[in-house]
Amino acid sequence: MQRRLRLGMVGGGQGAFIGSVHRIAARLDDYYELVAAALSSDPTRAANSADAIRLDPRRSYSDYREMARQEAARPDGVEVVAIVTPNYLHAPVATAFLEVGIHVICDKPLGISLKEGRQLAALALQKNRVFALTHTYTGYPMVRHARAMVEAGDLGDLRLIQVEYSQDWLAASIGSANTGAADNWHNDPLRSGPGGTLADVGTHAYQMAQFISGETPTQLLAELHTFVPGRPLDDHVQVMLRYANGARGTLWASQVATGCENAVRIRLYGSKAQLAFNQENPNELWFTPQGGNAQRLTPGRVGSAAAAHATRLPAGHPEGYIEAFAQLYVDAALQIMAVNAGQSIPEAARWLTNVHDGVAGMAFIEAVIRSHENDARWTDIAC
Amino acid sequence: MQRRLRLGMVGGGQGAFIGSVHRIAARLDDYYELVAAALSSDPTRAANSADAIRLDPRRSYSDYREMARQEAARPDGVEVVAIVTPNYLHAPVATAFLEVGIHVICDKPLGISLKEGRQLAALALQKNRVFALTHTYTGYPMVRHARAMVEAGDLGDLRLIQVEYSQDWLAASIGSANTGAADNWHNDPLRSGPGGTLADVGTHAYQMAQFISGETPTQLLAELHTFVPGRPLDDHVQVMLRYANGARGTLWASQVATGCENAVRIRLYGSKAQLAFNQENPNELWFTPQGGNAQRLTPGRVGSAAAAHATRLPAGHPEGYIEAFAQLYVDAALQIMAVNAGQSIPEAARWLTNVHDGVAGMAFIEAVIRSHENDARWTDIAC
Amino acid sequence: MQRRLRLGMVGGGQGAFIGSVHRIAARLDDYYELVAAALSSDPTRAANSADAIRLDPRRSYSDYREMARQEAARPDGVEVVAIVTPNYLHAPVATAFLEVGIHVICDKPLGISLKEGRQLAALALQKNRVFALTHTYTGYPMVRHARAMVEAGDLGDLRLIQVEYSQDWLAASIGSANTGAADNWHNDPLRSGPGGTLADVGTHAYQMAQFISGETPTQLLAELHTFVPGRPLDDHVQVMLRYANGARGTLWASQVATGCENAVRIRLYGSKAQLAFNQENPNELWFTPQGGNAQRLTPGRVGSAAAAHATRLPAGHPEGYIEAFAQLYVDAALQIMAVNAGQSIPEAARWLTNVHDGVAGMAFIEAVIRSHENDARWTDIAC
Amino acid sequence: MQRRLRLGMVGGGQGAFIGSVHRIAARLDDYYELVAAALSSDPTRAANSADAIRLDPRRSYSDYREMARQEAARPDGVEVVAIVTPNYLHAPVATAFLEVGIHVICDKPLGISLKEGRQLAALALQKNRVFALTHTYTGYPMVRHARAMVEAGDLGDLRLIQVEYSQDWLAASIGSANTGAADNWHNDPLRSGPGGTLADVGTHAYQMAQFISGETPTQLLAELHTFVPGRPLDDHVQVMLRYANGARGTLWASQVATGCENAVRIRLYGSKAQLAFNQENPNELWFTPQGGNAQRLTPGRVGSAAAAHATRLPAGHPEGYIEAFAQLYVDAALQIMAVNAGQSIPEAARWLTNVHDGVAGMAFIEAVIRSHENDARWTDIAC
Repeated sequence: MQRRLRLGMVGGGQGAFIGSVHRIAARLDDYYELVAAALSSDPTRAANSADAIRLDPRRSYSDYREMARQEAARPDGVEVVAIVTPNYLHAPVATAFLEVGIHVICDKPLGISLKEGRQLAALALQKNRVFALTHTYTGYPMVRHARAMVEAGDLGDLRLIQVEYSQDWLAASIGSANTGAADNWHNDPLRSGPGGTLADVGTHAYQMAQFISGETPTQLLAELHTFVPGRPLDDHVQVMLRYANGARGTLWASQVATGCENAVRIRLYGSKAQLAFNQENPNELWFTPQGGNAQRLTPGRVGSAAAAHATRLPAGHPEGYIEAFAQLYVDAALQIMAVNAGQSIPEAARWLTNVHDGVAGMAFIEAVIRSHENDARWTDIAC
Repeated sequence: MQRRLRLGMVGGGQGAFIGSVHRIAARLDDYYELVAAALSSDPTRAANSADAIRLDPRRSYSDYREMARQEAARPDGVEVVAIVTPNYLHAPVATAFLEVGIHVICDKPLGISLKEGRQLAALALQKNRVFALTHTYTGYPMVRHARAMVEAGDLGDLRLIQVEYSQDWLAASIGSANTGAADNWHNDPLRSGPGGTLADVGTHAYQMAQFISGETPTQLLAELHTFVPGRPLDDHVQVMLRYANGARGTLWASQVATGCENAVRIRLYGSKAQLAFNQENPNELWFTPQGGNAQRLTPGRVGSAAAAHATRLPAGHPEGYIEAFAQLYVDAALQIMAVNAGQSIPEAARWLTNVHDGVAGMAFIEAVIRSHENDARWTDIAC
Repeated sequence: MQRRLRLGMVGGGQGAFIGSVHRIAARLDDYYELVAAALSSDPTRAANSADAIRLDPRRSYSDYREMARQEAARPDGVEVVAIVTPNYLHAPVATAFLEVGIHVICDKPLGISLKEGRQLAALALQKNRVFALTHTYTGYPMVRHARAMVEAGDLGDLRLIQVEYSQDWLAASIGSANTGAADNWHNDPLRSGPGGTLADVGTHAYQMAQFISGETPTQLLAELHTFVPGRPLDDHVQVMLRYANGARGTLWASQVATGCENAVRIRLYGSKAQLAFNQENPNELWFTPQGGNAQRLTPGRVGSAAAAHATRLPAGHPEGYIEAFAQLYVDAALQIMAVNAGQSIPEAARWLTNVHDGVAGMAFIEAVIRSHENDARWTDIAC
Repeated sequence: MQRRLRLGMVGGGQGAFIGSVHRIAARLDDYYELVAAALSSDPTRAANSADAIRLDPRRSYSDYREMARQEAARPDGVEVVAIVTPNYLHAPVATAFLEVGIHVICDKPLGISLKEGRQLAALALQKNRVFALTHTYTGYPMVRHARAMVEAGDLGDLRLIQVEYSQDWLAASIGSANTGAADNWHNDPLRSGPGGTLADVGTHAYQMAQFISGETPTQLLAELHTFVPGRPLDDHVQVMLRYANGARGTLWASQVATGCENAVRIRLYGSKAQLAFNQENPNELWFTPQGGNAQRLTPGRVGSAAAAHATRLPAGHPEGYIEAFAQLYVDAALQIMAVNAGQSIPEAARWLTNVHDGVAGMAFIEAVIRSHENDARWTDIAC
């Protein structure tokens, strides 16, 4: 019998969306037991939130540093912490837990600057701790399969990578009845960092392009926009990209794309074939050979190890966002157990997005802002 | 803090698909704690299976009667049992637990005869226990919303109900490499009951038609087929239906529908509008007013209480089969907590499919067989 | 230079839908020149209609018998006549033109009784004239390709054939503002024959199933319905079918299928693969091998002679209903030129639907009515 | 009785794709009679081509200037000429016919330079002749309806316009068996002009964005690529656009987009709603209000004058590319008849794309090339 990993959480108090998703995801495949948390820095809200999720009140904290210190000191202390705070706290929280030797599962983006991202990467390396970054969409079986197809050469040489992420929840005017946009920390530069839509969803799109293609973007040009008056950060970004292998592509991300729910779409065109994925229909991946007919690939029919590893159900039983999220928790558990046992990372879990993806995301954010401020000139992406 | 319900399980040992799904579904929304189980009638397999899921070995049984007896006697005994055995055991297991006052969550179909179904319904009533029947597809938010639309009169008078359930996993020859069909209990009349595909998926289709439409079928004519030589039970069924309100419809279910994964599709045509749902894309429901344009309704955009109750994520974050299954566990928990507290069933949980749906399913199976044996004559559906 | 065939038309005066479609279809590929017509039996309407389409007034008739007589006597008389009248006139008009040796292109269904259908077939044979029946949907390239795939054995042994044809234009109450249903000849048994929806669209569905499958239905059971009060003929029909090779299937056709435009859909399941076609998206055909992934086949990518023969444009340039209709005119021209030259029918044009398809359609109508009147008993389909 | 317009054609000899499409389009709605043509500058090929399409040999020319001169002198000479030559001949041919007072229907792009485009616009104005430019995709009923919706304010203020045109027919290596790319005039700068993919399909995408949005692009930045070695012109272009009203957008066009057939796609996002169109499924237009559910609009159900004017068939009878092309011929006929009669252009025909669209297209081509040569700097689009 394999025991469950002892999980802690920082952030994710009552009303917080992503904290709840992390908890469901951690529970789904039964690798974790949530044993401690600092759900809020407000003691009352922390206690109430802990009670609502049946957490032992003695292991509910309102100060994450205190939590790191105390939990590290317990024999049954948390082994891994999930960080689900606003962006500006990611780095200090992760640092506090890494310092005491606790593995980290951190929501994206990694933080608010490339500099702090690099420091986190160095610290995780030094401490030999797993640092998972929850780029959810990479947990879908068909995204995993897409990456496997690219690696197997099924697309030939990649030429074009078109990626987009469009939502509409910031399209309404600030202060209008149907948006809480003005109050959301995503619109506050102090808590979100210098990127608005760029950081919130642009980094997802960028990461998806890299994840599936395996190609390294080297230069970009970009324009940021704020369509809704009064918003302090960007709500739309459009980018052109150059990849090291000569491939080209565009990326756009928008939270004012009227009528869109959560449309993460990517299309890759190689010399031999095309792949297309849309996360709103995540159980299918479209593969079209050059000059041929499109095929609708599904997890139950592709017969790949990559897809099978991220699939729980037989063909035709759709899995969704929670399952993709849970897959990252599965892979983190597999990695943590291996590291704890002094073993190498299992092959099946190798695609877990991590602190290096986070550093790449921060480099992307900073390059976009530099290009934008320079009238959309071509700009090197720091590596 | 609301404590978790103590859950037991009968069936679902290692390698069993649906047992594992029940456990994930029970865990997802954190209303249950699995504390005891009879995972197999084979003591070794029962013990190994219990160990694999970290069950306390002292509460692992190999005899469900023994489990019912012992758990009923404990102050911390199971409050509700999930029954995930082959069909022929549903009734005896459920009876054993109902008799000692334990609520039941039973996989479908209800059993192997209408007679035992009626006895179960009577017993559940007498004991005032919740008896949930896991017709998974009724847990999808868009199926709930569909029912709410029909109830609200959005379709006008229903005229046509076309439903189908098609799979291909029994299409290959028996004994061929890519099917375990010959060994599966679904093909064994002693364990599955008199219906093959009819019982396994035909009842799902029938239940879906009733669930969404709210209409009562009164007569049917039917033909059963066994396309693959050597199969002892039907692998295809086609049915015409007459409803009490004058509506008409067809139903077909097949496990030799080559190329199909798990296609549960229903279309309802009323005097005012049409609704269409396909469980392989469960996050959309198509609504078309008479003479008008089709609308793609999604959980995040319909703004209904019915859909919201069965939805965990914001718009565009797909939920799937596991979430639908979990919804039945949520509703069962809400009903059980209400019954335990002597309260009436909460409005939000009223659509949980139950023993009466199971009785209707058994009446359907028996009517289909009677009609088939009578050269597809119109046959009354017993009520 | 190949000259154009001289075409006549009976029916199709101002305001008639299908007559106009026949004229466009005849014009599209430039094989015909419309030189004479009896567009209406009302002399004034016939003359006005002729003027509107620039027909030589000396060759505009109001009596089709007079037209047949005069045109047959001219050296430059019509070589082929298009019959676009209400159903009850198909047989007398076709007879009049066949008798004087003029080829026939007739709208479907063939007529109003099996008996007159057989007489027409015998007469066409005796006179050695081409008798095309415009089952439009068989002119689509992907329907032709589907038939070629079945013939090539790509589906293996056919087991299931599911076909439907649903429209909503008769769903509103008779006399309501948005339907001319009450006045339409399709609702008049004297002009339409004994079948309403059955004859108008049911025959299309039946023909499509036979065309693609190449299988012969031998028995059916059926129910007719009239949902809208006051309608003298059926507006819905549902049928179960048995085929000579053991295949089974259902067919339903409805003109009260709320929200449907013109949905002709067919799915065929063989031992090796599935095919699916929906005429509202006619440039795609879905092929799914057993246990495999669906492929979206398109005219420009399948590379078959069958599809190429019915395609005018490169890949991705959609063709539609008019082009499918025109294909029947192309094939009729190729057959007529061959017959006129004493040659055998060219291979490419062999799939033109003809008087024998029409006879089969009449046999279907009569079998459905017999079964319906006999409480949906299994009924032999006359051959 | 309205007589047919006498049509001439320059270009379009045997084997030429677009010439054949123009002839079918001209024939479809019966407004034209093709009476004269210079199908090739090679006399033998011109004569053979004329014979193949049954043209009177006395009115078959091999010199377009001779044709213009002789036809202008005849009382029954051509009234309008269709120009279907390679791009570099558009301007000289159009000039020759405009000079003698003959209306022009010209394939796109308008020519090979902005300068000659402006001269043509001036000449057409001076001569008061209709100058239609066949931007086919604007002839679809749902594209017309989209424009009408934007004009009616249904989208609110436009913010984003995302347009793309992707094909794969130039993706294979030059000289490989499955492409005639090397021989095609589209790859020859002398005949195609300075843009390859940019001119061939990029201008379509650009025009579509302007047509539907009604907004004026003022600046762009762009990158051209040639992915396939040995190709003298671009085979991919990506562009960012700024519109006069503050809207932003991207445009990409590619003929190396592996697996694509002919995917012209546009999405427009306004403050109130989104519209999306894909020419490969041209009978639907997707409309999504902010925060609401997507609606699939079809020609038979939107009930707009704009769609109805471009539709020939009832709901659910798909029309395609030929019908869209024919619509431009219809509108050109309506305009020509009006001009000939000294009347104003009929409202229904006002959306015919014309020489001014062609000038805008040439300005786009030249701005893209300037930006590309300037390392993708923002560049004013000449107006």
